[in-house]
Amino acid sequence: MTDTVAGLLDEIADIGRDPARGGYSRPVHSDAEHTLREWFRGHAARRGLDVRTDHNGTIWAWHAPSGSRDGAAVTGSHLDSVPGGGAYDGPLGIASALVAFDQLAARGVGGTRAIAVFGEEEGSRFGVACLGSRLATGAITPERALALKDTDGLTYAEVAARSGLDPERMGPDPDAIARMKAFVELHVEQGRGLVDLGRPVGVATSILGHGRWRISIQGEGNHAGTTLMADRRDPMVAAGRLIAAVRDLARAEPGARATVGRLQPVPGGTNVIASTVDVWLDVRHPDDTVTASLVARIGEEAAELATDEGCTATLTEESLSGTVDFDAALRDRLSAHLGDAPQLPTGAGHDAGVLAGRVPTAMLFTRNPTGVSHAPEELCEDADAEAGAAALADGLELLAADPPTVPTAPDTDTTGGCPLV
Amino acid sequence: MTDTVAGLLDEIADIGRDPARGGYSRPVHSDAEHTLREWFRGHAARRGLDVRTDHNGTIWAWHAPSGSRDGAAVTGSHLDSVPGGGAYDGPLGIASALVAFDQLAARGVGGTRAIAVFGEEEGSRFGVACLGSRLATGAITPERALALKDTDGLTYAEVAARSGLDPERMGPDPDAIARMKAFVELHVEQGRGLVDLGRPVGVATSILGHGRWRISIQGEGNHAGTTLMADRRDPMVAAGRLIAAVRDLARAEPGARATVGRLQPVPGGTNVIASTVDVWLDVRHPDDTVTASLVARIGEEAAELATDEGCTATLTEESLSGTVDFDAALRDRLSAHLGDAPQLPTGAGHDAGVLAGRVPTAMLFTRNPTGVSHAPEELCEDADAEAGAAALADGLELLAADPPTVPTAPDTDTTGGCPLV
Repeated sequence: MTDTVAGLLDEIADIGRDPARGGYSRPVHSDAEHTLREWFRGHAARRGLDVRTDHNGTIWAWHAPSGSRDGAAVTGSHLDSVPGGGAYDGPLGIASALVAFDQLAARGVGGTRAIAVFGEEEGSRFGVACLGSRLATGAITPERALALKDTDGLTYAEVAARSGLDPERMGPDPDAIARMKAFVELHVEQGRGLVDLGRPVGVATSILGHGRWRISIQGEGNHAGTTLMADRRDPMVAAGRLIAAVRDLARAEPGARATVGRLQPVPGGTNVIASTVDVWLDVRHPDDTVTASLVARIGEEAAELATDEGCTATLTEESLSGTVDFDAALRDRLSAHLGDAPQLPTGAGHDAGVLAGRVPTAMLFTRNPTGVSHAPEELCEDADAEAGAAALADGLELLAADPPTVPTAPDTDTTGGCPLV
Repeated sequence: MTDTVAGLLDEIADIGRDPARGGYSRPVHSDAEHTLREWFRGHAARRGLDVRTDHNGTIWAWHAPSGSRDGAAVTGSHLDSVPGGGAYDGPLGIASALVAFDQLAARGVGGTRAIAVFGEEEGSRFGVACLGSRLATGAITPERALALKDTDGLTYAEVAARSGLDPERMGPDPDAIARMKAFVELHVEQGRGLVDLGRPVGVATSILGHGRWRISIQGEGNHAGTTLMADRRDPMVAAGRLIAAVRDLARAEPGARATVGRLQPVPGGTNVIASTVDVWLDVRHPDDTVTASLVARIGEEAAELATDEGCTATLTEESLSGTVDFDAALRDRLSAHLGDAPQLPTGAGHDAGVLAGRVPTAMLFTRNPTGVSHAPEELCEDADAEAGAAALADGLELLAADPPTVPTAPDTDTTGGCPLV
């Protein structure tokens, strides 16, 4: 095989383009994401890997020369995107894994290894991120996952069934977790840390704690022309003031990030005062207690602003993941092995963060000249992508020499305060 | 025929229900609106009316015993709805017209008369309200109308063609306008004027001047987790502050109404800082110069708020209709004929407002106990609906005795400052 990372990404450059938003919209189990899954399966099969899709819809491509799948060094990422996302968030990790496996084969590196493709990493269709890895680890119950709905009102159970999965079989996969002696995820950096350091590849120290909440503000729908300003109970006014308040509260909290990127007035007509507005809130902070207190203050502010407008507000937690510190020994070894690669934290969530409580886990980042992510401007230059794949191969080779590890913790937990991720 | 208004509306009570928003979503040329058109055609044909759909997609159901269609007394309304609208806005006028025609037939009233069903009255699919009557009167050019897009990116030309219309033939219909000696539209009141007066039916004095604008705020899309608060150019924050400012500016202007009921962040992901936010603005005031100055102030405020956030804002006029005073002689005659029916203004736009500059035009309102409109709570009690249909029959009988009038004005104009409507 002489594939390059850039060449592989070129093959899928036309799949799931979003002409309205720019960039790519590849929601989980959309036609675009299914096409990408097929593309991956084809590449894995051509490399002689044994390709299977498990009961949670995760694709596993195995190199298992001994026949056993225990003690596997696993790398993986995802193929779904945010709406209007970039070309690299997800697919770069998958393309790099294929190229890294080619290099390991060329080097004659043995051992059991696999590439995992997780579904709904972004949570852009069903609202909860890292759904594939959460299901596998038990960080979300299948009952809750299957009941999640997309904006068309379809449940995850319905969509999964249409994609050939059996919703009844979904849930924790302790065997898959126990088989991994380590998990390494490669990802485009979602900031300018490596640009500022002048380095193509880095190792992750931690993932910022983060969560999603939905604030539903209820007012009174009415006609925009016939309803006097004084007679209104307009939830959009409360929502507008809340967006500004979210920003101000986050600014006042060092290290915090809080964002409203999605908002839905119901019914959403130009000549209609909304009856309800759903405001989605993303909050992140290294200290989980600060995240909790910031969200509590935002909730109080929402209630006050709603009351000012004769409306009511309810805040619902959609998901919450505590700050994750990656295995310090593993990241130090990786960094040293990769020519003293810089170590840096990230504010973005990943499947690696979900797995980190169960399996020795690491992440590699490649340089992103724009620092932009979740937008079409996201970038990884070709040479950096190849450097990333080589680093991933080096990392997996390092792990191949290690003895298998024992599973570190029993199954626990659901989303909503999941202490493991 | 022994149909009642309530009975007719019962027949369509299940068509186009919106389980997510509540009420009805019946956008123009949707399956639901097409079903309603078929329902109307069936009822009109069973009454022996001659039913035709013209080149603009307006349905005309003719009672023309002399064979001539000149000097017609026309009533009409629409079957499309706002998203999540009520059961009466539009269909009440159509059902009442059918019952009124039954009563005129029973009374043996002669003369030429017709029921017109206009399309896209709400402008909820293509953004410009009263598209059918605007096309007929020349108040919008066919070029502009055909290029309008719905949220799926489909042009009005494409959607009309799929519905069997020929986009090349769309445009002004001076013959249809010249044939009308008067136009009377019956509508559920969109306020509590008749409730407060204790009367079931009223006559409209005027339609408040109103328009729609789109304010597009452009920032920089990025990752919600990795982008520091200080590094953001977030158009949602500017949009949020703008919504509050719109309300404050409108409150400070006596008689003004300004509403943001529709807002679209792009790309619209929870974990994504938006790159662009489109804010739709509805502004109304009896004095058109006040509307213009209020919109100008909102535009200045939008520019300032955008600048505060490192964003830019552009304001685009989607449609504008000046205040319409209905023909004073006609409304006084109608009021007197209907037992001194109260006369009252409305803040809502209607096809009658578009036609009023070209044809002697009047509107009848029926009592709405909730005062709510464009929402599921919109209401017309059965007895009031029958009273409305009887009043419409009385009004059309009054007009039947009149000689045909001459067209009052030549074709002019497009939307965007249309002085006639």
